[in-house]
Amino acid sequence: MAGHNFLFVPGPSNVPNRILRAMAVPMEDHRSVKFPELTHEILTGLKRLFKTTEAHPIVFPSSGTGCWEAALTNCLNSGSRILASRFGQFSHLWCDMGQRLGFDMQILETEWGEGAPVERYHEALAADSQHQIKAVLVCHNETATGVTSDVAAIRRVMNDLGHPALLFVDAVSSLGSIDFRMDEWQVDVCVSGSQKGLMLPAGMGITCVSKKALSTAQACSHPRCYFDYQDMIRSNATGYFPYTPSIPMLYGLRESLRMLDEEGLENIFARHQYLAGGVRAAVQEGWKLALCAKEPQWYSDSVSAIVVPPEFNAAHVIERAFRRYNLALGTGLSKVAGKVFRIGHLGDLNELMLMGAIAGAEMAMLDCNIPVIPGSGVAAASAYWRHHSVPAGLESRK
Amino acid sequence: MAGHNFLFVPGPSNVPNRILRAMAVPMEDHRSVKFPELTHEILTGLKRLFKTTEAHPIVFPSSGTGCWEAALTNCLNSGSRILASRFGQFSHLWCDMGQRLGFDMQILETEWGEGAPVERYHEALAADSQHQIKAVLVCHNETATGVTSDVAAIRRVMNDLGHPALLFVDAVSSLGSIDFRMDEWQVDVCVSGSQKGLMLPAGMGITCVSKKALSTAQACSHPRCYFDYQDMIRSNATGYFPYTPSIPMLYGLRESLRMLDEEGLENIFARHQYLAGGVRAAVQEGWKLALCAKEPQWYSDSVSAIVVPPEFNAAHVIERAFRRYNLALGTGLSKVAGKVFRIGHLGDLNELMLMGAIAGAEMAMLDCNIPVIPGSGVAAASAYWRHHSVPAGLESRK
Amino acid sequence: MAGHNFLFVPGPSNVPNRILRAMAVPMEDHRSVKFPELTHEILTGLKRLFKTTEAHPIVFPSSGTGCWEAALTNCLNSGSRILASRFGQFSHLWCDMGQRLGFDMQILETEWGEGAPVERYHEALAADSQHQIKAVLVCHNETATGVTSDVAAIRRVMNDLGHPALLFVDAVSSLGSIDFRMDEWQVDVCVSGSQKGLMLPAGMGITCVSKKALSTAQACSHPRCYFDYQDMIRSNATGYFPYTPSIPMLYGLRESLRMLDEEGLENIFARHQYLAGGVRAAVQEGWKLALCAKEPQWYSDSVSAIVVPPEFNAAHVIERAFRRYNLALGTGLSKVAGKVFRIGHLGDLNELMLMGAIAGAEMAMLDCNIPVIPGSGVAAASAYWRHHSVPAGLESRK
Amino acid sequence: MAGHNFLFVPGPSNVPNRILRAMAVPMEDHRSVKFPELTHEILTGLKRLFKTTEAHPIVFPSSGTGCWEAALTNCLNSGSRILASRFGQFSHLWCDMGQRLGFDMQILETEWGEGAPVERYHEALAADSQHQIKAVLVCHNETATGVTSDVAAIRRVMNDLGHPALLFVDAVSSLGSIDFRMDEWQVDVCVSGSQKGLMLPAGMGITCVSKKALSTAQACSHPRCYFDYQDMIRSNATGYFPYTPSIPMLYGLRESLRMLDEEGLENIFARHQYLAGGVRAAVQEGWKLALCAKEPQWYSDSVSAIVVPPEFNAAHVIERAFRRYNLALGTGLSKVAGKVFRIGHLGDLNELMLMGAIAGAEMAMLDCNIPVIPGSGVAAASAYWRHHSVPAGLESRK
Repeated sequence: MAGHNFLFVPGPSNVPNRILRAMAVPMEDHRSVKFPELTHEILTGLKRLFKTTEAHPIVFPSSGTGCWEAALTNCLNSGSRILASRFGQFSHLWCDMGQRLGFDMQILETEWGEGAPVERYHEALAADSQHQIKAVLVCHNETATGVTSDVAAIRRVMNDLGHPALLFVDAVSSLGSIDFRMDEWQVDVCVSGSQKGLMLPAGMGITCVSKKALSTAQACSHPRCYFDYQDMIRSNATGYFPYTPSIPMLYGLRESLRMLDEEGLENIFARHQYLAGGVRAAVQEGWKLALCAKEPQWYSDSVSAIVVPPEFNAAHVIERAFRRYNLALGTGLSKVAGKVFRIGHLGDLNELMLMGAIAGAEMAMLDCNIPVIPGSGVAAASAYWRHHSVPAGLESRK
Repeated sequence: MAGHNFLFVPGPSNVPNRILRAMAVPMEDHRSVKFPELTHEILTGLKRLFKTTEAHPIVFPSSGTGCWEAALTNCLNSGSRILASRFGQFSHLWCDMGQRLGFDMQILETEWGEGAPVERYHEALAADSQHQIKAVLVCHNETATGVTSDVAAIRRVMNDLGHPALLFVDAVSSLGSIDFRMDEWQVDVCVSGSQKGLMLPAGMGITCVSKKALSTAQACSHPRCYFDYQDMIRSNATGYFPYTPSIPMLYGLRESLRMLDEEGLENIFARHQYLAGGVRAAVQEGWKLALCAKEPQWYSDSVSAIVVPPEFNAAHVIERAFRRYNLALGTGLSKVAGKVFRIGHLGDLNELMLMGAIAGAEMAMLDCNIPVIPGSGVAAASAYWRHHSVPAGLESRK
Repeated sequence: MAGHNFLFVPGPSNVPNRILRAMAVPMEDHRSVKFPELTHEILTGLKRLFKTTEAHPIVFPSSGTGCWEAALTNCLNSGSRILASRFGQFSHLWCDMGQRLGFDMQILETEWGEGAPVERYHEALAADSQHQIKAVLVCHNETATGVTSDVAAIRRVMNDLGHPALLFVDAVSSLGSIDFRMDEWQVDVCVSGSQKGLMLPAGMGITCVSKKALSTAQACSHPRCYFDYQDMIRSNATGYFPYTPSIPMLYGLRESLRMLDEEGLENIFARHQYLAGGVRAAVQEGWKLALCAKEPQWYSDSVSAIVVPPEFNAAHVIERAFRRYNLALGTGLSKVAGKVFRIGHLGDLNELMLMGAIAGAEMAMLDCNIPVIPGSGVAAASAYWRHHSVPAGLESRK
Repeated sequence: MAGHNFLFVPGPSNVPNRILRAMAVPMEDHRSVKFPELTHEILTGLKRLFKTTEAHPIVFPSSGTGCWEAALTNCLNSGSRILASRFGQFSHLWCDMGQRLGFDMQILETEWGEGAPVERYHEALAADSQHQIKAVLVCHNETATGVTSDVAAIRRVMNDLGHPALLFVDAVSSLGSIDFRMDEWQVDVCVSGSQKGLMLPAGMGITCVSKKALSTAQACSHPRCYFDYQDMIRSNATGYFPYTPSIPMLYGLRESLRMLDEEGLENIFARHQYLAGGVRAAVQEGWKLALCAKEPQWYSDSVSAIVVPPEFNAAHVIERAFRRYNLALGTGLSKVAGKVFRIGHLGDLNELMLMGAIAGAEMAMLDCNIPVIPGSGVAAASAYWRHHSVPAGLESRK
């Protein structure tokens, strides 16, 4: 097909040309005397990204899911109780993994479209006077519904109750796009991946582990080897990896971290908020459609799930957009299949790229007879962006 | 700046990733025994592109301008008379080059926004009973005003009069985008470049020379060496080049020609017409603005020059679009400086890429206080595209 | 440093430009309707590579080590007995992983430099009349010592004894370089990675699982999730993956498999043997040094470990080669640290690339005062290659 | 064919991966407000490369040959007398171009293998008491014979005689590899190209023009347009180009100039001398063959032409090397066809790359029955390099 594709699934995000080029390197010896320079620059950059000075960032050759498994198998004994909430496909998958790995999952079932239920976490933890709950799981950004949860509030609940459980956070689709604070929120394990805010291809699990989690891990009996934190931390300390790392991914990650530093993390969060604001204006003010996220407090700045009117099938919109307009929208997963389509707005994006997505989604909806006013989405986004102050990363150039 | 740039100058056009990758090759020996395979595939493909079986395609390491100089210095004696028309910056530059090289330019001054004046060509040629005019120049697509001229009509005039002059055509911004027919129109020299419909970077002049032109060139005394046709044709016949060619550009050109073949020339022309139709709908029906091209017969399918209302400066729109929205629009050149901005719509494009350009131009105009209705451009283009039949290159995929 | 590096560690191997270019693609939706084409081509190609019609190839986002963990955790119950042999760092690591994951490892300690001890496997299996041994592990190519083992012989022992254990083979540094036959040898799990014979960067674990292993896995209780075979096989059957795959690695793997098909597997094995022959001639006939591999039956065609005279430290040679000649040689690991350096000769290689490595290793040895005759290595390799018949992949071009 | 090619023609030279990546950029608007930054960095860097503070560097979209034509047509009137010497194919081509463009060439025929005949230049200029000679041409490095001439000596002759002719120097295969000094030698036009010491693909003519030459050009009547210096200088002064430039080539050139600066020009010249010394040792001390260059004073540090014994045909060696060993050697051109093969040793090279070329040339010679001692070339080069001090660009890394 002529022209380039418009990729608006919420991951993999668009890899900027600068990173693609940084990855197009010849292979090199990962045990050479100069290799540690690369490792150290990456680990230092990741600490800034996670906003930590104390915790250990680790990159696994894996998807983000691998980092979930690492969190569970390193820091918990077999059969331990874990408190989690389920309000979308990705928070569901973590619950499911816990069950499959033999943990005792205490799951707060929550309506899809809402965020992590802080009150109910409080109740559950308060009820756990014996401290049977060894880990608390929170999905920072539920990619399936476009919902961001208040991790800081969960931490406050835990601190208020003096509950000693570890706090595990899934920041797969928030890290590098939405503010995340490892140290301030006392997160014990943060789990993420390369293919979202870091603007890389998939294939690298990116995680960060607190000293408390590491020290807990020392005594944990769950069988593990590939995802063992200690192997990584021991090797990384010397600048190397316990097994052959991906040279292109490491150089890509280094470039990504440099780009994040150049734009500035706070500027990046502001840009994501600004761009998300335009998309939400298109959806709500332009198309008069609803978001899956039920309240503004939960609106995600990295992905929006848009509810089509009940008499239509969102899957048709997605298929039409893909086949006819070369536009990849995120599909509705599990409970919201057919009900929503999603626009990812994370990573290396600007207004006009989103205008293509908005215009394309609108055309696909019209083709499916969903009654939206032609041009309304673009007009609303345009008004939003023209009347909000421009984040540094999109600022006028000299 | 975050996100990718939206490049809508009418050249260089966007180089598709497939071509970029084809160009990222290690160097090789251009005198090797296997090199001729590459040369032959390219020359054969170019013949199909020019729609010729008899004429000789030649690629010079030069810009398209170099091919203009080649046409004049190979096929004409010093001081010969040349008939040309001037109705834009690029037709002007050819007239200017003729004068600087010492030819006797007979120029039909024509209003900018009109195409080559067929009637006046007829008059001039009819008046030339002595056949002093040795070459007739036509600019097929005037990039500065977005005007396409009727080359076939000029040829008919020449044939009707039995005038023996050579016919030189500037197809820099039409070749590969708008139908061009070397043999059917009996064009003697067609001049083009790599950075437009061929979707390559600039740096390769692409020309095609009829047998008649070559035979005339044998006897022509104008000094020339670098751009000598015979050197090229002699070397090319063996599969080589008279001087070191650009390996990446040759591989890029091979890939470009393969892509043109896969989509099919007629499909490509239809796609350009379809996409241009949407842009014109945005301009005329959406924004209620005028094109620089005065009549539909002259509307160019590769570039549109849009006239801003007289109280505004188009240069401000262009600068705003560039600095604020990362959108590169074509500037107004010479006579139309400040009066028009241009949207190139040639090469590797689809609807959503153009939607970005339309939305961006609209936002930039609004920022400059030009009173267009927000969303109107996208709405009009959307309606146009949704109600016209889709060309093969944008067709639904299986 | 000027000039390119000479990478001769036995993995990552040199990624050919053709694969690098295939990987430089824009991201795309891994859940799109056209994605399954890619998945299916890859899985089909992998079957040819593993020489299987029945078994299931699986690609994990992991290093090769991850595939080892997958083999153990999918197909065995916790605490099961495993028979293995240890004769180098990589066979050691598998034993170590088994112990860490809580299996009952029965290890045949074998001198480094020898291959898997067929007789002792026979004894151990014969003694296991209760069939307590549930899996037999063999390292097909021990990368640390340059030793290839006779997997077929181990299978014959098992069949002769009618022993029902599963046969697990580590083919990390042999697959695609040295003949491996999944079906003929009735291998139950073969474990490999992307960064050796497949000529890709690291980051993709490549494994193949027999029907028998899969059926055993159904009933196995060892906790697992990330590396679960069934998740993969179920998703792959529809053309998708259970989590976001690496788009560049998949396109790279597709290109790699196409290249393997074009050259032909048997031709590739012959080329590796031919190139390895030249390296061994340089070592033994040129430099008069010994290989770590004790007998020709064990000589590896993908890597040679070269023993320096006892009064010298191989680590100095490696460091000198790296710092002074931009040549990366493989280091001696564990028991053979300081005693050997290694030349990897697998993947995308030809004679002159190896000549650079041979000349460079020789210069580095001379700089370390190891008494080799200057030019002797190249002379011996040259004689070997000039007097052996040329494999198809290096054949004269038309 | 498996493995990468060994490219040792004296241009195009190997493009380093770093430059290839710098060239893999999306297109951009060459008339944008930020474009001049790129232009200015390049022009400033070129001044350092040419060792000039006063002269104007210009890059033409052309081969190096185009810059020759520019020199003649800008600075001379039609029919002017030019003094040149001919001692190889490339000095010949300049003479030939002068004749074809209608100049009055006074040619000092010189034996191939010698450099520019300083004494005879002296005689010719001394005899020209009327100053009919308007330009003196010198080929700094004759690529066909591997001969470097003494440009400074020619300048001294001109100054001693007070001869006002312009001095034109062909530095196509020396610039960036062998010391060249625009200002110190009072060169009026230096002509070069992208595909040699600058390590880029072909396609960009790189030239430098003195103030004297420019002022002469003002009054010169030779017809010219494409290669007009003034058009370029006027546009460049504002940061732009008179026609669409090649975006990838400009970014590649910028990266190349950065690499030259990082290594340091004098270090680069030292590296070329050091590497050339090893090649000459292989030829003379190893293989006992002669160079085409007759005296050490003329030995070129960028290319060596090697004379095969008279009973053999060098073309067979070249063909064998290419087809059998994937090694591209330079062919013998014109008078030395069949008599010599050439090894280019310019640009991004190190010892081991040259070891591949030396070993490959040796194998090809042996295959053609030329009696050289196996390993002798590598042994001699190895001894040379191990016993000469290492230039910075190849220095041990920290």
